[in-house]
Amino acid sequence: MSYFDVASSAPLHPVAKQALVAALDEGWADPARLYREGRRARLLLDAARETAAEAVGCRADELSFTPSGTVALHRGIAGALAGRRRAGRHLVVSEVEHSAVLHAAESHEAAGGTVTRVGVDRLGRVAAAEFAGALREDTALACLQSANHEVGTVQPVAEVAAACAEHGVPLLVDAAQSMAWGRPDAGWSLLTASAHKWGGPPGVGLLAVRKGTRFAPVGPSDERESGRSPGFENLPAIVAAAASLRAVRAEADAEAVRLGALVDRIRHEVARLVPDAEVVGHPSARLPHLVTFSCLYVDGEALLHELDRTGYSVSSGSSCTSSTLTPSHVLKAMGVLSEGNVRVSLPMGTTDEDVDRFLAVLPETVASVRARLGVDVTPAVTPSGPDLVVDALGKRCPIPVIELAKVIGDVPVGGTVSVLSDDEAAKLDIPAWCDMRNQEYAGASPNPGGGTSYLVRRKT
Amino acid sequence: MSYFDVASSAPLHPVAKQALVAALDEGWADPARLYREGRRARLLLDAARETAAEAVGCRADELSFTPSGTVALHRGIAGALAGRRRAGRHLVVSEVEHSAVLHAAESHEAAGGTVTRVGVDRLGRVAAAEFAGALREDTALACLQSANHEVGTVQPVAEVAAACAEHGVPLLVDAAQSMAWGRPDAGWSLLTASAHKWGGPPGVGLLAVRKGTRFAPVGPSDERESGRSPGFENLPAIVAAAASLRAVRAEADAEAVRLGALVDRIRHEVARLVPDAEVVGHPSARLPHLVTFSCLYVDGEALLHELDRTGYSVSSGSSCTSSTLTPSHVLKAMGVLSEGNVRVSLPMGTTDEDVDRFLAVLPETVASVRARLGVDVTPAVTPSGPDLVVDALGKRCPIPVIELAKVIGDVPVGGTVSVLSDDEAAKLDIPAWCDMRNQEYAGASPNPGGGTSYLVRRKT
Repeated sequence: MSYFDVASSAPLHPVAKQALVAALDEGWADPARLYREGRRARLLLDAARETAAEAVGCRADELSFTPSGTVALHRGIAGALAGRRRAGRHLVVSEVEHSAVLHAAESHEAAGGTVTRVGVDRLGRVAAAEFAGALREDTALACLQSANHEVGTVQPVAEVAAACAEHGVPLLVDAAQSMAWGRPDAGWSLLTASAHKWGGPPGVGLLAVRKGTRFAPVGPSDERESGRSPGFENLPAIVAAAASLRAVRAEADAEAVRLGALVDRIRHEVARLVPDAEVVGHPSARLPHLVTFSCLYVDGEALLHELDRTGYSVSSGSSCTSSTLTPSHVLKAMGVLSEGNVRVSLPMGTTDEDVDRFLAVLPETVASVRARLGVDVTPAVTPSGPDLVVDALGKRCPIPVIELAKVIGDVPVGGTVSVLSDDEAAKLDIPAWCDMRNQEYAGASPNPGGGTSYLVRRKT
Repeated sequence: MSYFDVASSAPLHPVAKQALVAALDEGWADPARLYREGRRARLLLDAARETAAEAVGCRADELSFTPSGTVALHRGIAGALAGRRRAGRHLVVSEVEHSAVLHAAESHEAAGGTVTRVGVDRLGRVAAAEFAGALREDTALACLQSANHEVGTVQPVAEVAAACAEHGVPLLVDAAQSMAWGRPDAGWSLLTASAHKWGGPPGVGLLAVRKGTRFAPVGPSDERESGRSPGFENLPAIVAAAASLRAVRAEADAEAVRLGALVDRIRHEVARLVPDAEVVGHPSARLPHLVTFSCLYVDGEALLHELDRTGYSVSSGSSCTSSTLTPSHVLKAMGVLSEGNVRVSLPMGTTDEDVDRFLAVLPETVASVRARLGVDVTPAVTPSGPDLVVDALGKRCPIPVIELAKVIGDVPVGGTVSVLSDDEAAKLDIPAWCDMRNQEYAGASPNPGGGTSYLVRRKT
């Protein structure tokens, strides 16, 4: 059994567990109290802050602990926007930020603020010049992740930070996915992270605010954590978070090389061994341990279940695995295939054999899911007419694409297939299929009977 | 060494520690994921919610876990106010609520809402009729603690709940201090609590919202915890919180009797053994394990340090122990002495011998602090004149009261002493001293040279 989803949550690092258990005995008292148990708690808290600040690359008094990365983002964004209210109410984010950032942006819009969402290329990367172009006179804050959580692409933080500095706009860097791998690029004004992503315990986020950055905490006041995160400190977990971050960093360089090579292998082998699969995300400017690919004609949820049955825990950005039945906003922003999507993120310590075994079972697992969907995409031999309409209304990903693939051979080269679909994923997956199968995607239009009509012209 | 400050934070219950350590191995994955580690986490989370809901007296789907009691209060109050926005923007709280409630109330006022703060009697108890009288047509929410955190007085929650129900106003009950002792009185619409107060780990609060209560979470949206508390669940701590709540409740009835008797003993013995001490809070409608008293002519911080040196960890509501140099808002609302204030809250398991030892060292500890302040309050034999002015400007609690006590004998019966003071605590402590020493407090007026002039007339 292999757990390949550290981008979601990492198993506790042994040092984290050790530190946490020790801190349970020493760190339960209120660090604000004057008696010995309180003073001991304060010492632990101060030491943890020093350690974490060192790993972040900031001063201890710039760093607050929050209950999670999400809360760090929510409070960081709200506080920075409120602190810069006089400058304006414009917020710049990338389209591929974590949902916590995008939800904070929506909340800001609902309160009357404005938001520019900067797009990415097909590899998931922000163009620094485009991001810089979105900065305005009234921009109060810009947010950019250090690396993407779904496809692993590393963002040009240093260039964007330089542009922000030039415009006098503070930059919040969400370093949740990269914190284990090294100190974030300098140039940020605010920085956030989450301990359970690096092997620390749940219940701890980091919010660093550089001296000189305007910041006005939002909501009821509270004395703890420089007024930036209310409530009693989760001290045992904070101690464990700091200790494990230091431990993880000590292993990071060597593991980055080792896991980086394993991921390269997965990238190559998936493309070679799995027919009709697309590996997405940047091939080199990427996190060392993370790779994402999508498989045509595959139901993402079924593939996840099948891999789980075989002993592999991975996640997916396919629409069928989300509660809202929409494909991942990251894949959408990249304009890449979302069906049969699989994200593999390797824990430190993953062995060659773990990856070998995964690559051995993956092709047959994909094949079995396809077989269960009755996928036989060999086109019929004789074209039946110049144009065809496929009614896939009410059918969910990957059915519309499978239906399209089944009939494309039924029209002559130059003929068209119109796919009627009301599935969110089709918007992404039909153009992606055309790309992959070298067919022409001729656009979409509302279908009078409901849903959308996607027009595909046979090229080969 | 005895830790007598569980009202601030309780040492981890052995069951909490056991459950937490076990959950570290089983409960680190994301409970929203479909693979086995995620499903296992989901099972743990569901089971913990069932257990905690049973202890609260609500349905599992009414209960959300938050990162702390403070966050539960902030989010509960904000969500209830937003959900009832159409009814109005009036909030009713008692003057002796936890600071998290009072800060939320201030934040509501800053955002344009109105707040009524209902006072308490000298025992710290809200009058249900007075609370009911504060409810208005436009009251969106009322908040009342189950029991006070500083003096242990139990509030008339059932009566207040009945009045709220009659007015159609939801009642939020802050059960942080009483959760260990039993299921809260029914009648609440929202309920909050904090695990580290009952021997659970830090990092877990409870927010229960009864079905049918209007509630609109404030801030960026998030799918977790019914949208009521954003961020990755702190699952190991949640598991430990639920398990320890059940364990603590199993011991609660027997411990309530035992600790209740020990507290009665402290109440009696402090009054008997410590000269010029006042035991505050309700003598019978009180938490079983908590007692608070104040000592004239004593510096609270010095007393705390001295008790700590002797091996006792207690807390204080004296002004000198707060970062703002103001006396506790609870003591202020009660109108009782704040100088030399000590709160003793006994952990379950405290023995008779622990209390004996404490009572043995307390009188000499108080005496030694008084001696160091040079307190000799035997009044001079011959009165020097009909009226005196004591300039205590720039002097902090307990000096103004000590100065007053030193000279009261210098004026004849019927003569007056004016104490000039710019210390916040004097406002509370000079009238309290008059009460205790059977002298007449004749009022306060601004002093032209700065601060306030407190007028005291000698009666005996």
